[in-house]
Amino acid sequence: MTRTVYLNGEYLPETEAKVSIFDRAFLMADGVYEVTSVLEGKLIDFDGHAKRLERSLNELDMPKPACFDDLLEIHRELVRVNDITEGLVYLQITRGAPGDRDFVFPDPATCEPTVVLFTQNKPGLAEAVNPLKIISVEDERWGRRDIKTTQLLYPSMGKMMAKAAGADDAWMVMDGYVTEGTSNNAYFIKGNKIVTRALSNNILHGITRAAVLRFAREAQMEVEERNFTIEEAQGADEAFVTSASAFVMPVISIDGVQLGDGQVGPRAMRLREIYLEESLKAAI
Amino acid sequence: MTRTVYLNGEYLPETEAKVSIFDRAFLMADGVYEVTSVLEGKLIDFDGHAKRLERSLNELDMPKPACFDDLLEIHRELVRVNDITEGLVYLQITRGAPGDRDFVFPDPATCEPTVVLFTQNKPGLAEAVNPLKIISVEDERWGRRDIKTTQLLYPSMGKMMAKAAGADDAWMVMDGYVTEGTSNNAYFIKGNKIVTRALSNNILHGITRAAVLRFAREAQMEVEERNFTIEEAQGADEAFVTSASAFVMPVISIDGVQLGDGQVGPRAMRLREIYLEESLKAAI
Repeated sequence: MTRTVYLNGEYLPETEAKVSIFDRAFLMADGVYEVTSVLEGKLIDFDGHAKRLERSLNELDMPKPACFDDLLEIHRELVRVNDITEGLVYLQITRGAPGDRDFVFPDPATCEPTVVLFTQNKPGLAEAVNPLKIISVEDERWGRRDIKTTQLLYPSMGKMMAKAAGADDAWMVMDGYVTEGTSNNAYFIKGNKIVTRALSNNILHGITRAAVLRFAREAQMEVEERNFTIEEAQGADEAFVTSASAFVMPVISIDGVQLGDGQVGPRAMRLREIYLEESLKAAI
Repeated sequence: MTRTVYLNGEYLPETEAKVSIFDRAFLMADGVYEVTSVLEGKLIDFDGHAKRLERSLNELDMPKPACFDDLLEIHRELVRVNDITEGLVYLQITRGAPGDRDFVFPDPATCEPTVVLFTQNKPGLAEAVNPLKIISVEDERWGRRDIKTTQLLYPSMGKMMAKAAGADDAWMVMDGYVTEGTSNNAYFIKGNKIVTRALSNNILHGITRAAVLRFAREAQMEVEERNFTIEEAQGADEAFVTSASAFVMPVISIDGVQLGDGQVGPRAMRLREIYLEESLKAAI
């Protein structure tokens, strides 16, 4: 089935959704994005994603598109017309397509942002638990990972390095400490304690991260936000990642070292259950 | 006048040149590029750019497009139909537009690279000497600056920071040492010696850089490729940048500190003359 996507005010068949070669996301990675999950046909954590999107735009002095306040409605319409029960809505805003290529930002008075949204249908998303084998790679990304830009070449290369190593994903390491996964935040559990890197410009401020840490504290788990090494994580009882599309996903090995007894960890699974349950209650 | 551009085998009016929203350069900055100057209607250093392009593709495991061996002909045709005497040809190759967004590279058997070329007409390019006021900014780019990718958001931000500070461009500084300019390599001259950072993954391996250093040595100047600080450059007699589109461009101040007597430096101007003269002889 051909998806219907949204591009600059129009709902179009995906094959007809095209942008100018002068779009600044195409030429200069001058774009930001969000991915929102859909469960039971409803949007998970939409407000969190909208707030982070606004922050990304502000950090880059990127103008808000005229349709900014309609984004919820556009998300819902795409979910409806594409008949998504479980899946994702991807949203990207770019600084637009000025008449030519220039490092200098275009005048917002004459260059409208480009807005693109499309869905991905993923039946069984909530049920899908695919425990992850992780490798570690150097973190070679730019310095502002707190801004959710389309500069995703290195995370994409990281996934390929993992695949080549027979693993599922990679955790990135800077100055000896884990920053995060290629498209998720990284955690380990030792006893009753969850450890994950503290927020800074070095990692994405995960919407799912914030929710999961809140739920963990409510469940009387201890949360430590601090730097940690691959070696420390390898010695943990459990490990997991969080993201908008994977929710809470258990990690079973890191650089070939099995965690705990090599089985999916009960605490990570419990956090996943709580996250899905609570998020669904608040879904819109 | 509407430019004619090249997109995936077709010569099109620029307004009709559009790429899929699923193009990996649009979604993930998964693209590489080159900019070749045109003087007297001929291409400057084309072979150098073609070699570096091939290296960029290889470093990213990006397949060569079918038209790779026709790129010279496509450059020439665009110069001809757009009647470019002085200007640039911009070339971008992306990993293509698979049917959906995924961090994993698409199968090259089913996903053709996207190839885009367009011209920029710049009459007076060879004559245009606009001495630069430079500011310094932290180098926040990713770790593989030797690959000429479209991850140009930070260089673009650097140009905007320079503009906001009343300057023309920015030099980026990592761990206290200058790496390069936002879209050029950086040099200073003290006595008979030119100093510029040595090649590594930290800077672009400039085609113009290689030529200018060769000409400098032939002109009996001493060349030192090593790390240097902003303070050392501020104490120099002259400074300059090199790039395919600016050739050799004098720098007259760095972070508000005037270099030498504040005038365009004679050695930088001499290097510019030699570069233009020799490059034109070899232009094709």
